[in-house]
Amino acid sequence: MYGYDGVIPRMIAETVKWIGGVNGVLELIDQRRLPAQFEKLRIRSVEQLYEAIKTLAVRGAPAIGVAAAYAPLLALQWLPDDEKPREALNHVIKACDYIASSRPTAVNLSWALSRVRGKASDIAHEPRSTIQELKEVVLAEASAIYAEDIEMCRRIGENGEPFIHDGFGVLTHCNAGALATAGQGTALSVLFEAQKKGKQFEVYADETRPLLQGSRLTAWELQQAGIKLTVVCDNMAGFLMKQGKIQAVITGADRIAANGDTANKIGTYSVSVLARHHGIPFYVAAPSSTFDLSIADGEQIPIEQRDASEVTWVGGTHTAPEDVGVYNPAFDVTPAQHITAIVTERGVITNPNEDRVRALLG
Amino acid sequence: MYGYDGVIPRMIAETVKWIGGVNGVLELIDQRRLPAQFEKLRIRSVEQLYEAIKTLAVRGAPAIGVAAAYAPLLALQWLPDDEKPREALNHVIKACDYIASSRPTAVNLSWALSRVRGKASDIAHEPRSTIQELKEVVLAEASAIYAEDIEMCRRIGENGEPFIHDGFGVLTHCNAGALATAGQGTALSVLFEAQKKGKQFEVYADETRPLLQGSRLTAWELQQAGIKLTVVCDNMAGFLMKQGKIQAVITGADRIAANGDTANKIGTYSVSVLARHHGIPFYVAAPSSTFDLSIADGEQIPIEQRDASEVTWVGGTHTAPEDVGVYNPAFDVTPAQHITAIVTERGVITNPNEDRVRALLG
Repeated sequence: MYGYDGVIPRMIAETVKWIGGVNGVLELIDQRRLPAQFEKLRIRSVEQLYEAIKTLAVRGAPAIGVAAAYAPLLALQWLPDDEKPREALNHVIKACDYIASSRPTAVNLSWALSRVRGKASDIAHEPRSTIQELKEVVLAEASAIYAEDIEMCRRIGENGEPFIHDGFGVLTHCNAGALATAGQGTALSVLFEAQKKGKQFEVYADETRPLLQGSRLTAWELQQAGIKLTVVCDNMAGFLMKQGKIQAVITGADRIAANGDTANKIGTYSVSVLARHHGIPFYVAAPSSTFDLSIADGEQIPIEQRDASEVTWVGGTHTAPEDVGVYNPAFDVTPAQHITAIVTERGVITNPNEDRVRALLG
Repeated sequence: MYGYDGVIPRMIAETVKWIGGVNGVLELIDQRRLPAQFEKLRIRSVEQLYEAIKTLAVRGAPAIGVAAAYAPLLALQWLPDDEKPREALNHVIKACDYIASSRPTAVNLSWALSRVRGKASDIAHEPRSTIQELKEVVLAEASAIYAEDIEMCRRIGENGEPFIHDGFGVLTHCNAGALATAGQGTALSVLFEAQKKGKQFEVYADETRPLLQGSRLTAWELQQAGIKLTVVCDNMAGFLMKQGKIQAVITGADRIAANGDTANKIGTYSVSVLARHHGIPFYVAAPSSTFDLSIADGEQIPIEQRDASEVTWVGGTHTAPEDVGVYNPAFDVTPAQHITAIVTERGVITNPNEDRVRALLG
């Protein structure tokens, strides 16, 4: 059923996990509260899932893809046992459209939803199918996505690990770790695999304003893993590079266009310019589900704008005057030309461009 | 007595001001509390002044220079009226050394202290001088530094204003405004003078982690001045530039070496690299007292390291796990090659290098 035959690797955090059978619940680590509190949310409805994704209780492109995969099952759980599968399918489609609208940039979200929706549609259109069968099919597909994600993380780590050498200082931005996936992460998986090989290196984590995924989440993960870590404010990255403290940059991705242009957390573009200026390699680690081959380049990737209050409040502290103008894009786009290599579970795309992307994924 | 014959320009904030005669007090706006609260501190001792500078109640290279200029008078106020001037001079020297140790990077601090100390020494070594005369001399010199600072700000603004054109988006980092000087600022003075000329432009203020001088202080000043303003997180600057929203960058400075290398708030170096990558002019606005011609280049500028808690706490919110490693330099150095021009009260140094710096200042 899981679609792979590997061993599930050590996981630092069970970020997204379905508990039970078709009548189970979706359990999420509440990432809004980390690192101060470690709490799990139990999601029982599509509305609760929408809220959890929208408010970043669960975040990271692969993790929201996996979480979204369970939306159809959550929708079906509320229907009567004698509901007709074709009627039930309408609820599945409505749930998918609703969840897809929660965040516009990460393509893994719509990728996972369309996989489960496709399976649901197939079974619902079969004569004599039952709602019970429909539930089992959507759970099986969501579980496959979950299991593939775990395997994908491990393979990305193995494929990227050769880029990390003894004595390296590695800069990462935002969180592309276990908390951003169902498995051991993407960018951080590369570091975990390098650690397994006994390599000695140090990580610098950009705190990643406004929501501080670097200082809150990446720091929490790396501390648990026993990897040497220094947290810096985003504006310190250039100075670190100038001092020769950084030998590689590695980040995750939220959507990659056909030519390799990569949308990722706001600030990634600035880091890519700084890395280029200092001659430091810049790696992107992401599963193949992050690629959107339907769009030619990064100009067409929709960029989510988020609320001004994320910038002007930290906890209970107001950090700016009332009513000040704020610009708060959640992502930016790094051009393929700034990327040394994209590390996927299928292999590595060096100096990415359209031909090389299609050669590996097309 | 003030050493200049101009009119004191409109001031947005009386950041540093001596109230009364030789027995007066130093009044400072408490910048730790802005923008939530507008409160003034009354400083009556050298120890209070040290604490105010160290904890950034008063900050900005010119403002701490002006505030420090009153340290000798604060020291003298605690001495008996019949103290011998030569004995009193020892107290002045001790106070100057103590205040000079509060922050290592800004050179205006030691510049202002040595000016007042020099005058104090001259009078103390005159036969038949009294402690009353000593107090009057040090107050006069501090007052001259104060008044010159106000005039310097206005002239920097006038000299830099021609670089700002209609339709410009101008990025600034940290706060180099009225709150960083006794007058109307350095970098922001350029914008205030452009506003006076009726120019239409928009300002983007980097919030400037960790202490948020951009979102707290620059935003407060520009909002009061009615200049169109957008606050961004530091990591958004590159994305703004890529979208063509920035036509000029202007910042202040804390120390400028003989070759034009410029220490300023951490993150300034990254902004200079981003500006260069996008072909955007990068201006530094600073008084001649910010130059340290005794050092050849930026490598020799001491960089203050500050406490990790500035990065890991915002207000009452802990933004990182306990005991995480943190790097928190307060400043970085922007090489002269990245600077389009340095705007001083004496004139503009275009494409700064040692010859051009010495031609204007030497």
